[in-house]
This record gives sequence, C-alpha cells and structure tokens, in this order.
Amino acid sequence: MRNIVAPKSCFLVLLLLLFTSQLASATRKSLNKENPCKRFVLYYHDILFNGSDVANATSATIANETKLGNFKFGKLVVFDDPMTRDNHLHSPAVARAQGFYFYDMKSDYNSWFAYTLVFNSTEHKGTLNIMGADIMAAQTRDFSIVGGTGDFFMARGIATIETDTFQGAKYFRLKMDIKLYECY
Amino acid sequence: MRNIVAPKSCFLVLLLLLFTSQLASATRKSLNKENPCKRFVLYYHDILFNGSDVANATSATIANETKLGNFKFGKLVVFDDPMTRDNHLHSPAVARAQGFYFYDMKSDYNSWFAYTLVFNSTEHKGTLNIMGADIMAAQTRDFSIVGGTGDFFMARGIATIETDTFQGAKYFRLKMDIKLYECY
Amino acid sequence: MRNIVAPKSCFLVLLLLLFTSQLASATRKSLNKENPCKRFVLYYHDILFNGSDVANATSATIANETKLGNFKFGKLVVFDDPMTRDNHLHSPAVARAQGFYFYDMKSDYNSWFAYTLVFNSTEHKGTLNIMGADIMAAQTRDFSIVGGTGDFFMARGIATIETDTFQGAKYFRLKMDIKLYECY
Repeated sequence: MRNIVAPKSCFLVLLLLLFTSQLASATRKSLNKENPCKRFVLYYHDILFNGSDVANATSATIANETKLGNFKFGKLVVFDDPMTRDNHLHSPAVARAQGFYFYDMKSDYNSWFAYTLVFNSTEHKGTLNIMGADIMAAQTRDFSIVGGTGDFFMARGIATIETDTFQGAKYFRLKMDIKLYECY
Repeated sequence: MRNIVAPKSCFLVLLLLLFTSQLASATRKSLNKENPCKRFVLYYHDILFNGSDVANATSATIANETKLGNFKFGKLVVFDDPMTRDNHLHSPAVARAQGFYFYDMKSDYNSWFAYTLVFNSTEHKGTLNIMGADIMAAQTRDFSIVGGTGDFFMARGIATIETDTFQGAKYFRLKMDIKLYECY
Repeated sequence: MRNIVAPKSCFLVLLLLLFTSQLASATRKSLNKENPCKRFVLYYHDILFNGSDVANATSATIANETKLGNFKFGKLVVFDDPMTRDNHLHSPAVARAQGFYFYDMKSDYNSWFAYTLVFNSTEHKGTLNIMGADIMAAQTRDFSIVGGTGDFFMARGIATIETDTFQGAKYFRLKMDIKLYECY
C-alpha cells in the first residue's frame, strides 16, 4: 500500500505539472492592472511654434487642418517635448517625448499620438515607444507602450493620459502615468 | 526496491519540471496561428473628403501625392472611420478606426497604416493599436496588433486585411479579421 | 521511514512546481540581451526624390521643414527603400522598408521612424513592424520591433541602427542589426 501511495502523489504532481506547463504556453495569461512591475508619472509640455518663438517652442505644425469640420481635422504636429517630474514647465526635463500627433475628429477635438520617450540621465538610459488614440472627451485615456530599449529593454505597458492644462493653441500639458506590465 | 521506485518517479517529475520551467522563460514560445484567444471580423469604411461633403466624409488628405511615380506616392490621409459588423456602410458602428494611411510605392498602389480601434459600447470598452504595410498586390495582408487597453488590456495579435470594395478615390471598404493571440 | 521519504520528495517537487508556475505568470521575466532567438543584419538605402529622378529615388518629402531651428524640424519623408545583406546599394534587395521618418529637433539633426520590413523571398515571407527615435547624436540607437507577421509571426525585438554613410540630402544608408527576442 505504502509504496503505491508515493507514486500516486507523484502522479498528482505530474498532473499539476502538465497543467502548469500548459498555462505557461497558453495565450490567456493573467496580469494585474493594479500591479505594474514599474510605474512613474511624468508631465508632457507642448509649446506650439507660432513662427517666431524659436527659443521657447517645442513643436511645430507640419500639415494644416483641413475643412472637414471645425476641430482642426488633419492638423499634424511634430514635437520634441520636455518631460518633467512635476507639472512645472521649467522643472528639469528627465526625458524628451519625440514624435507626432494629429487631430482626427470632425465633430469634436480628438487626436492621435505616436512618440518615443527618450531617457538620457544618470537614473535612466533608454526609450519607451508609445502610440494610441487621445480620446479627449474622456477624463483619462490609455495609450499602449509597445516596446522599450536600454533600461526599458522589451518593456510593454500602458500610459494613462490626462490633460493637466490647455492654454489655447499655444501650450498644453499632459500628465502621463507610465505603467509597465512586462519588465525584463 | 519499492522505496527506490518512488523517489525515482519524483526525480523524473523533477526533470520534467526543470524542462517546463525552462520552457516558461525561453524566448521560443509556441502560439498556434489557427487558435487565437479572441477573434472577430469588422468592416472598415473610408469616405475621403472631397472638399464639400463634410456630413459624409470620414477622412481627409493632409499631404498631397508627390510626383514620384503615378500611384499617389506620399499622399497622406487622416481618418476617423466607422467599423461595422457586416459590410454595409450604414450598419451601426461598433467601433471607430482613428489613424492614418499613406501611399508608398512608385510602381503600383501600396500603402501603410497606423491606427487605433476605439470601442465604446456596452459590449466592449477599450482600444486596439495596429500598424502595418498594406501590400495591396496581395489578396490578404497582415497588420500587427501591437497593444490594447481597457477590455483589450495588453493584447497583441494580427489583423488580416482584405479589400472588400474600392470605388475610385471616394470610398473603399476593408474587411479586418482581428485575431488576438495574447489575451490578459 | 522509507514510505515517508517518498512523499516528502514529492512535496518538495510540489513546492518547486508552485514556484515555477508563479514564475510563468509573473511580469518580471528574464531575457538575455546577448542571446536573441533570431538575428540578422540588413542595410537600408534611402535615395530622396529631387523632383526628377523617378527611376532612382526611393523616398519623397511630403511635408517641408519648418522654421523651428535649422535642422529640418518637421520635414516628413515617406519611403519604400531596398534592404540588402551588404552595404552595396546595387546588391539584390532581400526586403523592402516601407514607412516614414521625420526630423524632430531644433538644435541638432534628429529623427523618428516608423516602418515595416516586408520580406517576400524564398527565404522569408512576412513582415516586421518597427518604430523608434533615431537619436542621431548617438553612435548606435535602438528601435523597437513591435510585431511581426508571416514567418515572423508575433515577433518582438530590437533593431539597432547605425549610420553607415550620409551623402547630403541625396542618399544615406543605415545598418540595421535586427534582433528578435520573442520568436514563435
């Protein structure tokens, strides 16, 4: 009897093991939204070039809005924007956001972003690549962090965006809550 | 003898276990192309703005074609297009596709897309971020689904595209077969 | 005694097993930067259209540089560029790079890329989708490979870029070291 018990336990273990190995290769994995492996908040500052403020401007329009509606549909802006730890424009930049956005709705303001966060400090070296719809009608909206390099090698996650201030066509500021769920 | 058998089994289990744990951290994983964790088909409708049909148009040209060849090379279009369950333009939109495409071949029609599927219904809330080459010469072509948010948190997959109809410069429709292989 | 030993071993195995299964679902995974699952080097050749060299040109400017600084800020280029195994422009193309780049810094040359490597040979059929900041001040810079299709189904990785030559506005060549860390 006893010598059967032991293999029986092993058999159970084996079953569990097979179940586990299946889990490991399965497509439905569990990640906890509330529990990113890395998280930090940064503020994005965009000062749109007006044709003369070269010293201050951080972005420029490269395609003008179309006449499809009254919400700047098609206006395309390229940016190299400072990212700061707090919401003060003149705080030291801990990263740059380099990329573009454009407006894309005829019935309201709405936009679309693709950009890279470039870190080059003693704290972090590397990049995070991000894209997503900036659904302005929502209080917060989520972009996908689709890849990373350097200190953020192969990272993936979510950047939750919130408009912190909007001062006409000249300046706006976004709060970006960077949450990585795949860290390597 | 018997009491050796049991540890031996356990040893085998242990070996299997080590093998499994290696699989779990290995870079070569197995995903079955035929077996996505989530799949659905949607139709994309693009009505290009002609300068006056504001009510109907869903996209607009923001950079004109260049003179590099005769296939609209460089023409850049921003869109906010309805996605429907069947191929009728006037069926209820279950999502919006927000993004852009441009033509990019001098010897034939060919284009490149990046966009977000925005879901905001009782059935689905969230986004899927997609990019890829629209190799028009092929019957079907695959885009990468590089990230997701909300109900599609952290998703990845493939969107297989097929031209359903093409009516000159005015209207075209794509069938998009959305297959997610990473679901969380 | 003996019959207690065996289940004890099994219990240890079970503990190990649970530990392993936890590893499998954890967010912190280990990937070795030095050990991609697939790697190859390709050269990217970009010949910018000057308005008349249709036969040779592989890219065209679709939005002109702005007056924000003196480093072509905002200049947007769409390309369909040949990728070769060595750094000779006239070597057979083993893939095409289809996408765009733009300049995005007011104080120096710097750019941003998003593109698809399209493979259609006996060796490889499929695509790799890539995006990232081309931080020209750095000797090498890393883009994210955010997805793949066909032979590169669901792949992810890093493309390390290095300028191989730069001949004014007319021609430049990049070395791209393609490293995949997720292969399926």
